[in-house]
Amino acid sequence: MSEKNIMDYDTVRLDDENNEVVIIDQTRLPGSIELIGLHTAEEIWEAVYRLRVRGAPAIGVAAAYGIYILAKQIQTEDFQTFRQEFVRQKEYLDSARPTAVNLSWALNRMLTVVEKNQDKTICEIKKLLKQEAEEIQREDILVCRKIGEYGLSLVKPGDGILTHCNAGQLATSRYGTATAPIYLGQERGYHFKVFADETRPLLQGARLTAFELQASGVDVTLICDNMSAAVMRNGWVNAVFVGCDRVAANGDTANKIGTSVVAAVAKQYGVPVYVCAPTSTIDLDTPTGNEIPIEERPAEEVTELWYRDRMAPEGVKVYNPAFDVTDSALIAGIVTEYGVARAPYTESLAEIFRRKQQAPLQ
Amino acid sequence: MSEKNIMDYDTVRLDDENNEVVIIDQTRLPGSIELIGLHTAEEIWEAVYRLRVRGAPAIGVAAAYGIYILAKQIQTEDFQTFRQEFVRQKEYLDSARPTAVNLSWALNRMLTVVEKNQDKTICEIKKLLKQEAEEIQREDILVCRKIGEYGLSLVKPGDGILTHCNAGQLATSRYGTATAPIYLGQERGYHFKVFADETRPLLQGARLTAFELQASGVDVTLICDNMSAAVMRNGWVNAVFVGCDRVAANGDTANKIGTSVVAAVAKQYGVPVYVCAPTSTIDLDTPTGNEIPIEERPAEEVTELWYRDRMAPEGVKVYNPAFDVTDSALIAGIVTEYGVARAPYTESLAEIFRRKQQAPLQ
Repeated sequence: MSEKNIMDYDTVRLDDENNEVVIIDQTRLPGSIELIGLHTAEEIWEAVYRLRVRGAPAIGVAAAYGIYILAKQIQTEDFQTFRQEFVRQKEYLDSARPTAVNLSWALNRMLTVVEKNQDKTICEIKKLLKQEAEEIQREDILVCRKIGEYGLSLVKPGDGILTHCNAGQLATSRYGTATAPIYLGQERGYHFKVFADETRPLLQGARLTAFELQASGVDVTLICDNMSAAVMRNGWVNAVFVGCDRVAANGDTANKIGTSVVAAVAKQYGVPVYVCAPTSTIDLDTPTGNEIPIEERPAEEVTELWYRDRMAPEGVKVYNPAFDVTDSALIAGIVTEYGVARAPYTESLAEIFRRKQQAPLQ
Repeated sequence: MSEKNIMDYDTVRLDDENNEVVIIDQTRLPGSIELIGLHTAEEIWEAVYRLRVRGAPAIGVAAAYGIYILAKQIQTEDFQTFRQEFVRQKEYLDSARPTAVNLSWALNRMLTVVEKNQDKTICEIKKLLKQEAEEIQREDILVCRKIGEYGLSLVKPGDGILTHCNAGQLATSRYGTATAPIYLGQERGYHFKVFADETRPLLQGARLTAFELQASGVDVTLICDNMSAAVMRNGWVNAVFVGCDRVAANGDTANKIGTSVVAAVAKQYGVPVYVCAPTSTIDLDTPTGNEIPIEERPAEEVTELWYRDRMAPEGVKVYNPAFDVTDSALIAGIVTEYGVARAPYTESLAEIFRRKQQAPLQ
């Protein structure tokens, strides 16, 4: 157990000298802050699959650094051989988790660097890959900060904010997405009262969100996922902020399982739901939520806590989707680094991308 | 660990010879089936408070047998002395849990026996108390069976049914309330597909409902509480059946925390919600859900599993209401042993009580 504050650590960091991607092993939080270095493709894949590093933006950054580390180790001067091996590694990493689009988005950005620089030496391409991965991380921080600014404009000092799962600093490089307005508000004395859903089965809300908000001095109260209606009925919640793993062109949003439950409850109690979405998570090639693949995970996540304590009878059938789709009709706004999109989303999200093409983020 | 099927045991049983109320210790399920005998007021209070016996009807039966056991031990022939001590014990037991009305309902029925029989000997009163407690249990079984018949009329073979917490046999003397239609359907080859919410924090759905339905051969799938929207969006659920701890005169219903979350989600997906309510849980003296006291329980139930494994940071604030109130507008029907009440509930529930007064249940 470290004495340092969790906020002092990088969620994902490149250690170029040692050929490793250094992450906080999030499966050990909050009990113990342990950094691990990922060197091989298998280690990176396993860390993503086992949720040692998780959260769509953080997965993107880890994958970018990861494919760079792997590319560095490809021993050839022949472009086609290099490219072939790069694609093989990329496809392997991409198979770790299907729902969050950032994983393939970041890996595709890295592949584009390779393909656009056929005329350069392999050594030069490797340098460019490093730059691109660093740029992905730099943008992540900038994007989260912008989302924080736009999100903050949607609430007022003293508001109650409910969030689900962890779209916090631990899911990104800094600020988080859903937590970015909370952290910026904290800096500015907004005194939000935050309710963190614990988020079964893997308890990212209890273990990660409550942990990082508490470490930052935010007024946070932990609740079980099934208590959202109780706190809203009490009048304690003015807005819901959640992250997302993929937003379809019509605004339907895949995010951690339970998000659409929160959204239905919020509708019942007249509370607006804001999805905080870096444009990297918006997938205009996916028309609606029905086309988003939903990852199903092992039953043991539900029936045993950390695969140790049985909480359900032996042999019971379990349905364990890791994500759900929230209909865009339940979403009051999608907060991106280029502004807040409102219904109808097919138009407003396209407009967000026009802004993105016109003016790179500063 | 017993090899016997959980359905072979009585949830609550009087052992008159040994002056004890025998219950299944439900905090040990599903890992281990352990029967415990309750002899003293403190043991009975603790068993109710710690949820060793739980579920509104089962608590009523346990309290009735419990106060009988305690009354038996009052050593006096003087009515006023007997009555005074009886009331003292009754008020102590009544303080174990505040939300479920059955606890005070059953204890008040027992007190009425004492007060109506002032002219009898203490020995005779004790015999009448035993008869009344046995009658409460006999009625419980009859009531659950009737609720099962009325509930079954609301669904059809092959339907998907979602239930929350445990309003099963383990919450009653037999059949359960919300599970009664499921068990009767099972007897008649209805082949329901049941989804059991695990029900945080104490996991009664995972530990008890999935356990007893599985033991009865029902097709049951365990889900986390935050997966209800996913299964409904998949079109797998035709009806929701839940129990209740107290129904107000206007139909607002207090039940296990999360019930109103399920109800809001069900509304979103057009799935009817049926509250299975013995008339003993309907409290016409409580005008609306706003007047139902909501028990709050220790933070450790949320932050530590069985007070052993920390799942949240030290010192985090927790809100842990044991129940929530579902607005009657979200309830498609309240299924009682005298028929199904529909909105407007102020009228239909009063009509249910008129039927009850006119014709005792057969």
